[in-house]
Amino acid sequence: MAQKSSIPKGTRDFSPVEMVRRNYIFNTIKTVFQNYGYLPIETPAMENLSTLTGKYGEEGDRLLFKILNSGDFLKNLDLQDIESKSLGKITTTIAEKGLRYDLTVPFARYVVQHLNDITFPFKRYQIQPVWRADRPQKGRYREFYQCDVDVIGSDSLLNEVELIRMIDEVFSTLDVDVTIKINNRKILSGIAEIIGAPDKMIDITVAIDKMDKIGFEMVIEELKSKDLSDEAIEKLKPILQLKGLLKEKFPALMEILKDSETGMKGLEETMTVMRYLKDLQLKSKWCLDLTLARGLEYYTGSILEVTANDVQIGSVCGGGRYDDLTGIFGLSDVSGVGVSFGADRIYDVLNELNLFPEAVQSSTEVLLVNFGEKEAAFSLMIDKKLKESGIKSELYPDPAKMKKQMKYADQKGIKYVLLIGEKEMNSGVYSLKNMKQGEQTEARLEEIISIIKS
Amino acid sequence: MAQKSSIPKGTRDFSPVEMVRRNYIFNTIKTVFQNYGYLPIETPAMENLSTLTGKYGEEGDRLLFKILNSGDFLKNLDLQDIESKSLGKITTTIAEKGLRYDLTVPFARYVVQHLNDITFPFKRYQIQPVWRADRPQKGRYREFYQCDVDVIGSDSLLNEVELIRMIDEVFSTLDVDVTIKINNRKILSGIAEIIGAPDKMIDITVAIDKMDKIGFEMVIEELKSKDLSDEAIEKLKPILQLKGLLKEKFPALMEILKDSETGMKGLEETMTVMRYLKDLQLKSKWCLDLTLARGLEYYTGSILEVTANDVQIGSVCGGGRYDDLTGIFGLSDVSGVGVSFGADRIYDVLNELNLFPEAVQSSTEVLLVNFGEKEAAFSLMIDKKLKESGIKSELYPDPAKMKKQMKYADQKGIKYVLLIGEKEMNSGVYSLKNMKQGEQTEARLEEIISIIKS
Repeated sequence: MAQKSSIPKGTRDFSPVEMVRRNYIFNTIKTVFQNYGYLPIETPAMENLSTLTGKYGEEGDRLLFKILNSGDFLKNLDLQDIESKSLGKITTTIAEKGLRYDLTVPFARYVVQHLNDITFPFKRYQIQPVWRADRPQKGRYREFYQCDVDVIGSDSLLNEVELIRMIDEVFSTLDVDVTIKINNRKILSGIAEIIGAPDKMIDITVAIDKMDKIGFEMVIEELKSKDLSDEAIEKLKPILQLKGLLKEKFPALMEILKDSETGMKGLEETMTVMRYLKDLQLKSKWCLDLTLARGLEYYTGSILEVTANDVQIGSVCGGGRYDDLTGIFGLSDVSGVGVSFGADRIYDVLNELNLFPEAVQSSTEVLLVNFGEKEAAFSLMIDKKLKESGIKSELYPDPAKMKKQMKYADQKGIKYVLLIGEKEMNSGVYSLKNMKQGEQTEARLEEIISIIKS
Repeated sequence: MAQKSSIPKGTRDFSPVEMVRRNYIFNTIKTVFQNYGYLPIETPAMENLSTLTGKYGEEGDRLLFKILNSGDFLKNLDLQDIESKSLGKITTTIAEKGLRYDLTVPFARYVVQHLNDITFPFKRYQIQPVWRADRPQKGRYREFYQCDVDVIGSDSLLNEVELIRMIDEVFSTLDVDVTIKINNRKILSGIAEIIGAPDKMIDITVAIDKMDKIGFEMVIEELKSKDLSDEAIEKLKPILQLKGLLKEKFPALMEILKDSETGMKGLEETMTVMRYLKDLQLKSKWCLDLTLARGLEYYTGSILEVTANDVQIGSVCGGGRYDDLTGIFGLSDVSGVGVSFGADRIYDVLNELNLFPEAVQSSTEVLLVNFGEKEAAFSLMIDKKLKESGIKSELYPDPAKMKKQMKYADQKGIKYVLLIGEKEMNSGVYSLKNMKQGEQTEARLEEIISIIKS
């Protein structure tokens, strides 16, 4: 009985070409992580729903994939809940586990659970898929990989500097020109405090963010509509109009924020980080971006975001400092800072800019053509010798038509084809064909090995 | 509000040491797969339940993890089904997706779905976790990795030979002494046919399998209890008592099976494979094992199983040939052969035999001690130069007590510690301490670089 073969919407198969390209990205990222002393961990795909629920807001709870309890999942179900369609209560009863929604909450859970085995500061990276029951659309999937790197248990700003160095190294290795935007939540708090609207921090930031798109006047309108007083808006104007180089921006901001302890602290932190960055002479651009307002619900200090300069695609990496990641699991006062690389976005950027290394599906260097039983038995021993010489070789398994075997080599991107028919078996002189240039060389095995290796 | 932090039973966190060890296994396996021209693919964690259900028997269906539909999963639910506790029907209504149970069914689905993009023979490998709602116990997990390698679209026995070479290469690289057991379903069919009990093939094989444990007489008793006729048992006796070397076994089997076409075909296939293996001079032992009866529900030709010789742990790898893998998805007559490496078992074997390479948690070669703000700023530049020289270095982020920083280096297995205090900053002569031998060298940066690199 034949079935329609398809996969759930929002999920993907990765074929060999995509795998090679994705591994190129993952390996680049991993190598940088390792060069800076970060250690890998992995956590289970399934977490207890009690670990996940309530960590991502109401919307996040809705987007968690829940796993039906095994066995008699109806056991503890109350029929009345079904009649009253109490979805939430029913879910809790019939599903105890959910799929990982991000890598941050499992990491926090991991740290608390393995506290005794961890040496702090703990520098870890984690590259695993996450699942979200989001409405699928272009570039948004229900299963996608996150590449997280965090250091936890140290509030030194050298950690921020290290993460920015790693971002610089990843993207310059991938040959992607990026801008690393830096902000600090404390600066945003300070601004809100100074203009007398400490509770309006997010509204203000969102408005500032629109300066480029809607212009100064419209931003002022928007702020008014958010019930910001005229006085506050007057005070905000010089900030909105801050332009120019860092060395001009910082003194201006210091003047503006001088009465806010929090604001001054944020400025000082940011200036310290930037002083280090200047000395390090990164390859990527970096800047202070007061409109950067990601993760204001949990970031407490530095905020980072990376955008590709040559592609319109949103951020390819982002993160920040959080002062109480593990608090929800009972371990308070552990400061951490981390960033997450968006593998899918980076894939799209490399694809669009044609920056992937030549896409060879296979690493096979030479295909041995199969001319029949006797020749194949002979070629098998040649294949063995090629492999012993460090050459990646394949013997075609069937004595198929030459055309078919050649097509196989071509489609797999194999550079050489080795032809050993009966004549060649007897003479010990084999035919090596270069699939790209088309030229054919007759030679003994030693010479063939050195041609392939050169 | 603090929560208890734990993970679902049967699942595991992998900490850095375990990750390094697991990656050692995965990388060894992957390298061999790639050397033989196999290409990587990945499929989604979630498949439609219609793809998974009915493929693993009734028990398998029960062990599938099912994912609750998002949104109003009660929508199409019939209250009567709840009242009558029709678990199966309810499940189908409220869960459309399930977690991958193995890599074979998703692979078959993949082949059919991507038929137009695949060049046959298609040699693929796939290393991903699978999930089973089995009762967790020692060595059995609800989430575990499978490493599958298959070639599909070729019925040449050279594929079997290639897989066995790869098994040999994986385990000899890992330094594990294994025996590769080889059987063929057609031989088993032939035996059942010859003794006049073609429908008793599995009973017979199970009984043969017990020869070593319960002895000849008891096996005969067991066969009688399975309603095997006295005549059949008489005919089976010489097979049960087959001993000795292959070159003695094969002629005896040929004599016994001479009237079974299927049996003779199986013998011929097995002898062909073994003739190749003999020429190839594998490092691992291999043998014909008539008691090998894995996967008789789907294997149609060769059957393979690998056991470690120095550890009692069951099979570490196994597989076989299947003639109709994709039939369930509407693509018939595609023959394939493949094996699956059991990463968890292999981990346990390496662990027990102490065969893991020295477990270094971190690849960091040198830790730069942090003596304070000024020294750290200076050390950051030294760190940059070390990295530019290809050395994996870390600067400790906080000016913590020396003892704490040393403990960090020690626990992370970092070999060298570089001390740059104010004196060293001024003189340009730094102190390099070898953490293992305890000795300390005073030297300029160039010399320090060459010591670390040597």
